[in-house]
This record gives sequence, structure tokens and C-alpha cells, in this order.
Amino acid sequence: MTSLLVTNVSELTTNGERTLTAAAFVVERGLVAWVGDAAAAPATDEVQDVGGRAVIPGFVDSHSHLLFAGDRSAEFAARMSGTPYAAGGIRTTVAATRAAADEQLEANLVRHLAEMRRQGTTTVETKSGYGLTVHDEARALAVARRYTEETTFLGAHVVPAEYADDPAGYVDLVTGPMLDAAAPHARWIDAFCETGAFDADQARAVLTAGMDRGLGGRLHANQLTEGPGVRLACELGLAAVDHCTYLAADDVSALRDSGTVATLLPGVEFSTRHPYPDARALVDAGVTVALASDCNPGSCYTSSMPFCIALAVREMGLTPAEAVWSATAGGARALGRDDVGRLTLGARADHVVLDAPSAVHLAYRPGVPLVAHVGSSAR
Amino acid sequence: MTSLLVTNVSELTTNGERTLTAAAFVVERGLVAWVGDAAAAPATDEVQDVGGRAVIPGFVDSHSHLLFAGDRSAEFAARMSGTPYAAGGIRTTVAATRAAADEQLEANLVRHLAEMRRQGTTTVETKSGYGLTVHDEARALAVARRYTEETTFLGAHVVPAEYADDPAGYVDLVTGPMLDAAAPHARWIDAFCETGAFDADQARAVLTAGMDRGLGGRLHANQLTEGPGVRLACELGLAAVDHCTYLAADDVSALRDSGTVATLLPGVEFSTRHPYPDARALVDAGVTVALASDCNPGSCYTSSMPFCIALAVREMGLTPAEAVWSATAGGARALGRDDVGRLTLGARADHVVLDAPSAVHLAYRPGVPLVAHVGSSAR
Ligand SMILES: [Zn+2]
Ligand SMILES: [Zn+2]
Repeated sequence: MTSLLVTNVSELTTNGERTLTAAAFVVERGLVAWVGDAAAAPATDEVQDVGGRAVIPGFVDSHSHLLFAGDRSAEFAARMSGTPYAAGGIRTTVAATRAAADEQLEANLVRHLAEMRRQGTTTVETKSGYGLTVHDEARALAVARRYTEETTFLGAHVVPAEYADDPAGYVDLVTGPMLDAAAPHARWIDAFCETGAFDADQARAVLTAGMDRGLGGRLHANQLTEGPGVRLACELGLAAVDHCTYLAADDVSALRDSGTVATLLPGVEFSTRHPYPDARALVDAGVTVALASDCNPGSCYTSSMPFCIALAVREMGLTPAEAVWSATAGGARALGRDDVGRLTLGARADHVVLDAPSAVHLAYRPGVPLVAHVGSSAR
Repeated sequence: MTSLLVTNVSELTTNGERTLTAAAFVVERGLVAWVGDAAAAPATDEVQDVGGRAVIPGFVDSHSHLLFAGDRSAEFAARMSGTPYAAGGIRTTVAATRAAADEQLEANLVRHLAEMRRQGTTTVETKSGYGLTVHDEARALAVARRYTEETTFLGAHVVPAEYADDPAGYVDLVTGPMLDAAAPHARWIDAFCETGAFDADQARAVLTAGMDRGLGGRLHANQLTEGPGVRLACELGLAAVDHCTYLAADDVSALRDSGTVATLLPGVEFSTRHPYPDARALVDAGVTVALASDCNPGSCYTSSMPFCIALAVREMGLTPAEAVWSATAGGARALGRDDVGRLTLGARADHVVLDAPSAVHLAYRPGVPLVAHVGSSAR
């Protein structure tokens, strides 16, 4: 067994009881075996001196859509420029994804995961939802499962064109044969509860079918309008409800009274010019807030958790320390995990060395690639 | 003489007559010797296949403050969190900069220039302005001159504490002995025309003194309030006036009728929560708009031109193509240069290979480090 001391850490964000300065930690078998003052560090087989840089837990990105093919940059450019564009929206990506070979889907996924890792993300949830057939949903999840434990079945993303006249028939498909095919490859079930996608009854049917099969539940809700999604998520005790852009007072109290994490996705508001949710009000109300990228080719094609942190501070009222917590421990909470998102005794030693003396720099230096080194227990 | 063909470029932003697809270009003696369709490329000594990636001109960052020492991250965190902080503002940095050895100033500059280059910036203007003594301004510019031609004397940044009761005496110092010491190391003279800094008469005195010595003129103006700065810049025929956050109709028409470039610094608005200037209105009025980072430890510590492009699209109404132009050719225009910021015949071959099929991705993928390779003629 090899032990590694990571030392000369100017600021160590543990997400435990306190943030340490002049700190060090020991990694054994991929886990944190000791944390404390650098001056008191035990002897180890190897030593990594990070040169007075800050270290944080690896980012836990609890919401992404990486199982896709095709390009929608022209649609983005038209949307931001206010020029007309015959955009097919999600359906453009569905067509390209269905047409893609497994190898293309896998190569795309691997490329995006590598890009995320270079930016400090060490745990990634990713979803199906661009196949929308039994075969295409199952194969996407089978590809994803080779790379992450956090796979989510999102057959209920939108009603595909071929079911436009029979949405109830599509819900039957999702909760029946599609779930049968997808469940072996998925940890989570998800749905998009929104006007134009699935209503609360449909979302409830999808979620309960998945949860009856042992999947954990999470939900896209209140992205474009207020609605019943957030309250449904809290009622069903889901791990997380994601977007939360348009919230009524009832939604905030439901979140506060439940264990459901509110996962905010500020990259979406950035890329669609919607108003940002008020993370400050949520935290002040006692709601647990996570930050995630929502990386997808349509509404938000960032994969950068540092960018999400900078937005959360600029636009959503979180302090830099809160934003870092939400992007690490908060994301872990949204995935029902306590072994990642923290650098405390026994946790996975997934960590990021920043080219900066403190984690504040993630917000203080927006857009600057500050990840100097990523260390993790996993592949 | 070695010739290099850069080929298999999916989209080549030349800033010339048109953007090319399936393109290539030839580099000889550091200059662009040929541009055209990849299929028609001439034979060369060496070939670089960029694998179907987009190529743009290297960014021209025409406004930065890299000659400083000290850290102000705690002040930033307090400002964004709305908590009290006994901030000294620029004067904090002045004290740290005066106390720093030449070697520290140089190491700090070199580190920031390397960080900029990794993000695709190949031409950097940088300013003095944290010394505010004859000795400290001159030594900062002497350090800078070793690394960039684009050095700017900004003795008129703020009135230092020791001249608080005698601002006229400080202007005399700036236009007299300080200019004598700084001018040999500077290409430009600059001032901060703003309530609390220098009024229009003082700024005019500083600028004309520098211009009489053969320096080019540029000005910080209209950052915090409307005022006379932009009109002064246009009247004096300065190369650029920077910030332009608060503009009256008269300012826009003065810009339109002059050759003065309006340099917008969206990272400042991001990091101070000021409203963004309306770049769309300026472009529509016929004003030449540049984008720059304003990288500095106080109001804006980003060094990322891609981040500025993403903000200019999200917040200031530029199209992705306009924002890329403003960050390259626009920056060159703001420095009175036509040899950089473009990939046309005879220009410097400074270029950036993006990890993306088109330059739209710089706005479409905010925060993601998309610079795959930086090629340049200079060191
Ligand atoms: Zn999503
Ligand atoms: Zn400035």
C-alpha cells in the first residue's frame, strides 16, 4: 500500500468542519487517510508539494446531458443575435443521436468527460434523453455506464415527433418497455416537468415507475415557468430537483421541509438569457443548493464548474465559499453521496489543485483556467 | 527560409474579406504568406494538420494592468457578498507594488502573460499605474518593455495618498519628471478621467504632455458615471477610449465621428455588478468597438478573452462573429495596428487553433478552455 502526502496547501477546502491553511492530507488506497496542518503531517511513501496552492474537492457535476451527437452552434448564434432560425430544438439532437453509431456516441462522451476532468470535475452524472426509443435510450445508457456510476434514464425528456399525437402512449412506452431496457444501465430516473414537455401527472407516473424498479428519482422542473414540478419532487422525496429558475413561495417552503436538493444550473440562464434563480434566498431559507453544469448542446453547452461558480456569485448571490460548496459537497448531496465532494477522513481523495492561493479565485478570476492538477481515486 | 502550411481548418476567421471553410494558410518568416482553400494550398516545407478545427487570429488584449504585486481576493469576496471590508482599493495595490522587488514585479508579469497566451492572447498592452512615483512608474514600464511593445504610462491612475491635498502638484509631477522617466519605456500615455480620479482638464494636461513627447494617447473614461472623458478622447483623436460604460447620446455621436475606438471591458461589469454597456447600439451607430480584459487585481481579475467574448454576446448584444472581431481586429485597431488581429496576406501569423469546429463556440461554450494551440511570430 502506497501512501501519498499532498502538502504545502495554502488553503484546503475540506467541506468538513473547517477550511485549513498551511495544510496537508494523506491519500491511501484512493481515500483520504489523514488531514491537518502541514507541519504535523505523518511520514508517507511519497510526497507531492503543491507549492502554496489551494486545494478543493473535485467538482461533482450532478446534471449533464453528454449522450448526444450533432452540432447546434448555428442555432445558438441565431438565438443570441435575435435572428430567425428554423431550429428543431431538442429534436435536432434526437435525430442526430439516433443516426449516430455507438462508437460516435462513446467518442463524444469520452471527449466531454476528458474536458470536464481537465476543469476539475471528478464525479459526473449524465443522462439519456436524446434517443427516445427503447433501443436508443438503452444503448446510450449502456455506453455511459462504462464511464460513470451516475447514469440517469431520461426517456421523459420530450415527447418525440412520432408520438406527437399520442403523448399518453409515449408515457406508457417510457414506463414500460423503455424502462425495462434502460433500468439495468441506470442509477436514476428523471423527467422534464414543464409546459410543452410532461405535466405533473405524467412526470409522477414516470418517476414512480422508475422508483418502483429501484432507481433513484430526480426531476427537471420550473425551468421556464412556475409549475407543480418542484412540489412534486419534494412530495416524492427525490434526491434533487433541477433548474428551479421560477419558484413560488410554496416551492421554497416545500424544498426547505424536504430533503430534496435544489440544483441550480446558471449556465442555462447565461445561454438563454432567462433571469437567474435567487440562490441567496434559497440558502437563507435553509434549502440545500447544488450547482451543476447541465452541459448539453441546446440550452447550455458549458462543461465548466468554475464558470458556474463565478455566475453563482455574480448573479445568484452566493458567497464564493458557498458556491464552491454547492459545486462539490452540494453536488454530492444531490446524488445521495457522502464519499465525494469533500476531503475528510475516509472520503475519496478526488481533489483539484488550483493555480491560485485560495478558492475565492474561482469567482475572482472568471473564465481563467485555474485547474493546475486533478487527482482522483477513480479512472 | 522555412514555410509552414496550417491546413484542415474547418473555419478560418481572417478578419479580411471573408471567413473561409475547409481552409489553410502558409506562414513564412512569421507572416501570413498565403491564405485560401485547403485544396488549393501550395507546397511548403512543413505541414500542420489541425484536424478540422477552427482557427482565429490571436487575441489582441489592448487593456491590462499587469504591473502589480499583492492580493485583493478578500476584498473581492467581501464586495460580492455585500459584507463590510476596510478596502484600500487601488491604494492597497500601490503599497504592495512599491514594496515589491523588480524581480517580483517581473515574475508576476511573466506569469500573467503566460496565462494569457495559454488562452490565446498573442498581443498584450499593459500599463503602469500602481507605482505613482517617478521611480516606481519608470521601473514598472522598464520591466514591461522587455515583454511587450505595447506599454502604457498611467501615472494618472489615481492621486496617491501623499498628494491627497495637492492634486495639482501630482499632475505637475506626472507631466514633468515622471513623464521624463517613463517616456523612454512607453508607447502610450493614459489617464483615468472620472470623479474621484482626474477631471477633464487634468486628463487633458496629462494626455497632451505625453502626446507632445511622441506617445500615443488612450484614456479610461465613463466607467462609473457619465462625464466628459469620452468626448475629450474623441476631440484629442486618441486611439481608444476605454470602459464607455455610461454613455450619453453626445458621446456616441462623438465616437462615431472620430477615429477613436470604444474599448469595452465586460469583465469589469461582471466583477463589480455595474450594468453592461450596450455594444449593439455602438456598433449600429457606426462606432468601432474593441473588447479587452482590463486584467487587474481590483475591479476585474480575468485574463480571459474568450470569457469577454461570451459576456459581450450574452450581455452586450454583439453577435459571436462581432465579438470575435472586436477581441482581435478591434483590439488591433485600438492599438493603431494593422499587422495583428487578422490572418490576411502580410499580417503576423499569430493564430489560435480552437478545440471546436467554429469560432461561435467561444460564446456557445462559456468558461470552457477551448484553446488547443497558439502559434505566433513573436516570442
Ligand atoms: Zn437538463
Ligand atoms: Zn484599466
